[in-house]
Amino acid sequence: MSNPFEPPLLKPDSPEICKVVFQPSGQSGKVKAGLSLLDAARSLGVGIESICGGAGTCGKCQVIIEEGRFAKYDLTSSADHVSSADQDERSICARRGLSNGVRLSCLAHVKGDLLVTVPEEAQANRQVVRKAATERVIQVDPIIRMALLTLDPPILGDRSDQERILALLESRFGLKAPTFELTALKSLPAALREGHGEVSLTIWNDQAVIRVQAGLHDTPLGLAVDIGSTSLAAYLCDLHSGALLATTSAMNPQVTYGDDIMSRISYAVETPNGRERLHRAVIHAINELAAQATAQANAAAEDIVDCVLVGNSVMHHLALGLDPAQLGHLPFAPVAGGAVDANARDLGLKFNPGARVHVLPLEAGYVGADNVGVILAEEPHKQDDIVLIVDVGTNGEILLGNRERLLCASSPTGPAFEGAQITHGMRAAPGAIERVRIDPHTLEVAIKVIGQEHWSVELPDEQIQARGICGSGILEAVAELFMAGLVQPSGKFNSKRNSPRLIRGPKGQPAFVLATAEQSVTGSPIVLTQGDVRSVQLAKAALYVGAQLLMKERGVQQVDRIVLAGAFGSLIDRQRAMIIGMIPDCPLDRVIAVGNAAGDGARIALLNKSSRTEAAQVARWTEHITAPLETEFQEQFVAALPFPHASHPFPNVQRMIAERREAARSGELFSQGEAENDQ
Amino acid sequence: MSNPFEPPLLKPDSPEICKVVFQPSGQSGKVKAGLSLLDAARSLGVGIESICGGAGTCGKCQVIIEEGRFAKYDLTSSADHVSSADQDERSICARRGLSNGVRLSCLAHVKGDLLVTVPEEAQANRQVVRKAATERVIQVDPIIRMALLTLDPPILGDRSDQERILALLESRFGLKAPTFELTALKSLPAALREGHGEVSLTIWNDQAVIRVQAGLHDTPLGLAVDIGSTSLAAYLCDLHSGALLATTSAMNPQVTYGDDIMSRISYAVETPNGRERLHRAVIHAINELAAQATAQANAAAEDIVDCVLVGNSVMHHLALGLDPAQLGHLPFAPVAGGAVDANARDLGLKFNPGARVHVLPLEAGYVGADNVGVILAEEPHKQDDIVLIVDVGTNGEILLGNRERLLCASSPTGPAFEGAQITHGMRAAPGAIERVRIDPHTLEVAIKVIGQEHWSVELPDEQIQARGICGSGILEAVAELFMAGLVQPSGKFNSKRNSPRLIRGPKGQPAFVLATAEQSVTGSPIVLTQGDVRSVQLAKAALYVGAQLLMKERGVQQVDRIVLAGAFGSLIDRQRAMIIGMIPDCPLDRVIAVGNAAGDGARIALLNKSSRTEAAQVARWTEHITAPLETEFQEQFVAALPFPHASHPFPNVQRMIAERREAARSGELFSQGEAENDQ
Repeated sequence: MSNPFEPPLLKPDSPEICKVVFQPSGQSGKVKAGLSLLDAARSLGVGIESICGGAGTCGKCQVIIEEGRFAKYDLTSSADHVSSADQDERSICARRGLSNGVRLSCLAHVKGDLLVTVPEEAQANRQVVRKAATERVIQVDPIIRMALLTLDPPILGDRSDQERILALLESRFGLKAPTFELTALKSLPAALREGHGEVSLTIWNDQAVIRVQAGLHDTPLGLAVDIGSTSLAAYLCDLHSGALLATTSAMNPQVTYGDDIMSRISYAVETPNGRERLHRAVIHAINELAAQATAQANAAAEDIVDCVLVGNSVMHHLALGLDPAQLGHLPFAPVAGGAVDANARDLGLKFNPGARVHVLPLEAGYVGADNVGVILAEEPHKQDDIVLIVDVGTNGEILLGNRERLLCASSPTGPAFEGAQITHGMRAAPGAIERVRIDPHTLEVAIKVIGQEHWSVELPDEQIQARGICGSGILEAVAELFMAGLVQPSGKFNSKRNSPRLIRGPKGQPAFVLATAEQSVTGSPIVLTQGDVRSVQLAKAALYVGAQLLMKERGVQQVDRIVLAGAFGSLIDRQRAMIIGMIPDCPLDRVIAVGNAAGDGARIALLNKSSRTEAAQVARWTEHITAPLETEFQEQFVAALPFPHASHPFPNVQRMIAERREAARSGELFSQGEAENDQ
Repeated sequence: MSNPFEPPLLKPDSPEICKVVFQPSGQSGKVKAGLSLLDAARSLGVGIESICGGAGTCGKCQVIIEEGRFAKYDLTSSADHVSSADQDERSICARRGLSNGVRLSCLAHVKGDLLVTVPEEAQANRQVVRKAATERVIQVDPIIRMALLTLDPPILGDRSDQERILALLESRFGLKAPTFELTALKSLPAALREGHGEVSLTIWNDQAVIRVQAGLHDTPLGLAVDIGSTSLAAYLCDLHSGALLATTSAMNPQVTYGDDIMSRISYAVETPNGRERLHRAVIHAINELAAQATAQANAAAEDIVDCVLVGNSVMHHLALGLDPAQLGHLPFAPVAGGAVDANARDLGLKFNPGARVHVLPLEAGYVGADNVGVILAEEPHKQDDIVLIVDVGTNGEILLGNRERLLCASSPTGPAFEGAQITHGMRAAPGAIERVRIDPHTLEVAIKVIGQEHWSVELPDEQIQARGICGSGILEAVAELFMAGLVQPSGKFNSKRNSPRLIRGPKGQPAFVLATAEQSVTGSPIVLTQGDVRSVQLAKAALYVGAQLLMKERGVQQVDRIVLAGAFGSLIDRQRAMIIGMIPDCPLDRVIAVGNAAGDGARIALLNKSSRTEAAQVARWTEHITAPLETEFQEQFVAALPFPHASHPFPNVQRMIAERREAARSGELFSQGEAENDQ
């Protein structure tokens, strides 16, 4: 049996040399007659799928032999230039439901010049396009591989099933003595029986057989999870095609024990069993997300064989069950900062019993694996442009730099942008107000609620069914209130603006009605209070000052691009983020919003094993900048609390506000409002 | 920091070259001045203990500098030829309680010619002598190693604890990126705190940190377990010194579900949850043995970090939770026959949470890991002599051969020799009759009971307190009954012999009273019945025919040595084993009894990692011979059932019986009886 990792050496220009061209890549070269098309392809660097190691059993390595004359390639092809299909090949094609005319490249042998088409489903080196503002291609090369083996029934004197499988893995796939997970060993005899000797093995990192299934299986599943302080997001992927099968999200149930990372640390350290309780809570939530996601994809959680986790340092420690105490005080030393590989079952994750977990490394005390995910997704370390990446979340993280030097810092944003600690805040779920527009002249309000296609102004009140307001709605509401003059630059509500929506809200504090009692599912108005505006101010100032700090350290006055990342409702409204002063003033076309970049990075690490090595390197290379504990910094923070106004150098913001007023005056506000978000 | 795995290169004959002699090995050579004594020792191949990698913290690498003139070695030594102890060295010596005059070889540097003594406790490459009939030396080189590291308190910008430890393991010990068991990571911060930065790491196979402890710890424990069909034996070892700390044994609780391996397979396959129940039963028993053994050694089961299991193929599969169904029918194909490495916790073993388990490979369908253990202990594959090794147990196993060719076979002996399925059978525990003598003339009976120092003839009856009869007692009783003519060569009791002890026993069958009602703790006589004798006949015939089969296959008429292995009560009485025809007739001085060789082999694999590789090779090399399913074989078996008598070619047996009668006649019987067993 040929070893797929050692393409056969060719003697060029010997008489039996044939030219073979593979489509659609156009890769071509000369190979020895008699070689299988699979070996020919490999020797020319053309990737063709095969999970049986060329044994003629999996039916994956299908190709189409093109017939006729091909002047373009200077060769004649015909069925005579390839060996004809024998009974074995016809029967496996029939068994795997392959159409007529398809040949198996491991069984078809070169007899003359050939033009061969590799259909899309048989192409190895798959790629998947990540749907994001910045479209990126992920090379699908997961740490999991499948192998299809057929064992003859044992005869007296044969070695054990385990040893015969290990021998085939070495001879067919070049794998040296991988270990066998005990759970996989346990299921081996039943799988061999059920598959009549044919079993699919799931192999981790060419080192361990972690699952055995009867018959042909080639779609192992993986789960990428972004563990935020407030929200969890899970991405279920087909590790074969790289396809995203389902996305699920939930509140982090740890919020019951504390809103932010410092209160989580306190709970973990001070409450008996606190650490274990927080650990179990997040693991339980991940199990729920996995169950939902696999149900959506018509699969079972047992099919998940690999998992990548990201999260800030505290979420990371709690998910692994590690003591986060050291993260609560100087010098903020993590227990484990390098990548961690573990068995999913040892964490309590209810995936396949042999499933593995990979946890991306941390960058520093407070700059976590989630930010490493952001780097994998946005790749600032590969670019010439100086980019500022602001990952908005309860624990905000900021990156600044390019291929020469990349800085990172954490920013204790607070949970305002995730809807927590906001009077009517909620996570991005049906009923959440996710978008807000306020006419600066009429003070008319339009909202858009998750689950509704139309803005409130186009719907009867009772159809709106608002329940609360999510992160993106909070940001927009504050920006709109400010632009409409309902909120002053200081953040105070402007009682001189005459609006019936300006009321005394809960606890008697000033508040603005976003959804009236009639528009609300609760029968009470949904409001944004003075305290809520203050929370947003603290959050945006923290991010702004963090960005300023890194720009000063990096010695730049402005950046080439700003990336706004975050996973709360719609993409962050980049214009309004700038209007409230969350990011430095700059031309709007240099700002993009990308959604959950940390989750995207987790997905990349799930689908591509070499990205894990890259993550480890870049996590070590990125420089962590800690905020100086000085008066100067406090002063900067206080100065960043107000919204941008005339006395501040925010020319782009001022222009945007002026344009907005103009648009409102000409009655184009709500249509413009929609266009703005079509980024 | 020097890397202990790369001894420094020396430029011989340069001016700063000094001669250093190490005692007691006498190894000597020239080294560069300025080298530490530890590096000097390593460059000369002298093993000195060090678990801190030469960091000057563990205090293990102690040496004594000999002073004066040493004509024998052609050198002058004095304190001036070595650097003097600095404050660091004096303080670590004080902290570790080392006496004055001792130097730490990692901190003492060569300045001139030296004679150095390495005290026994500092010598690496330890050896331990296995106490058995054949004294063997085990090279202590376990798969577990300890490392003592000291971490400075973290400062801002430091890497995580995990990463700083991995960096030290690489620089000090040359370990490349070992993984960290999650359980070890979890205990890391508390250990660092408690040890003020000093932690001992338990490292498995240079690949994984499996345990972290505060401060200095250098005595990891290991457990070797022989899982017999009827009995379990556990050996607790100090993996540092190799010392055997405790031995414990118990009935295999699986006997409740079936006496022999076939009935265990039936139970596992046919009863719902049967396999799981058998698995849990044996794991529970091993946990009990571990708890008892560690309690005896004033340790805790949590200190066990490595474990080696051996057992026949069915015991092996059940211990691992594997389906034994295939072992129940032709071609007897094991699920897993190669060595298995697993986490102890995944098997339900309550050792250290990071502890590992190694299961020796099987030889063939019915020749199990226990027999691989026998090979490791007796090493027939390294000898010129043709040796026959009979491992007596419920599932007997036989080895025959030498370094050129080694054959093995299994023999379904039945549990008679382990006291099961015998009317008053019991395992070797206090109260069990382990030795029996019957005067062939007077028919007087003497027994010896486990827990009593004296034979019954020297004690008042009420002090004997017999409870039953164990394997070694059963074998002796049958041999003595035969020699006294109470049992005929056919196996039938001889009613013509006139003894009040020949009675009608349970169910009315003939029986012989070994202990009278007065001698018994139950108040009823302890007897051996006709059925019991028949069980022994079946068992001994199975072993005899198995040996004959292998001798025929190997083409030998006689063997150079016979080794009787087995773990039931006293060592097997080699003379009586031959008298009943369990082994081929040969001069008695060529027969030795060795006790539990399988357990010894497990202990060797526990203490020496390279023996695991050797086991894998020899398991593959040994040829398995299956009994032919033919009439001829059945005839041989039937022919082997009677006890050796005049018409059989057993000259040595006949001579022994005659000598015995002579001794009885001259009144020397019981004194001779004792001497016989002093092998």
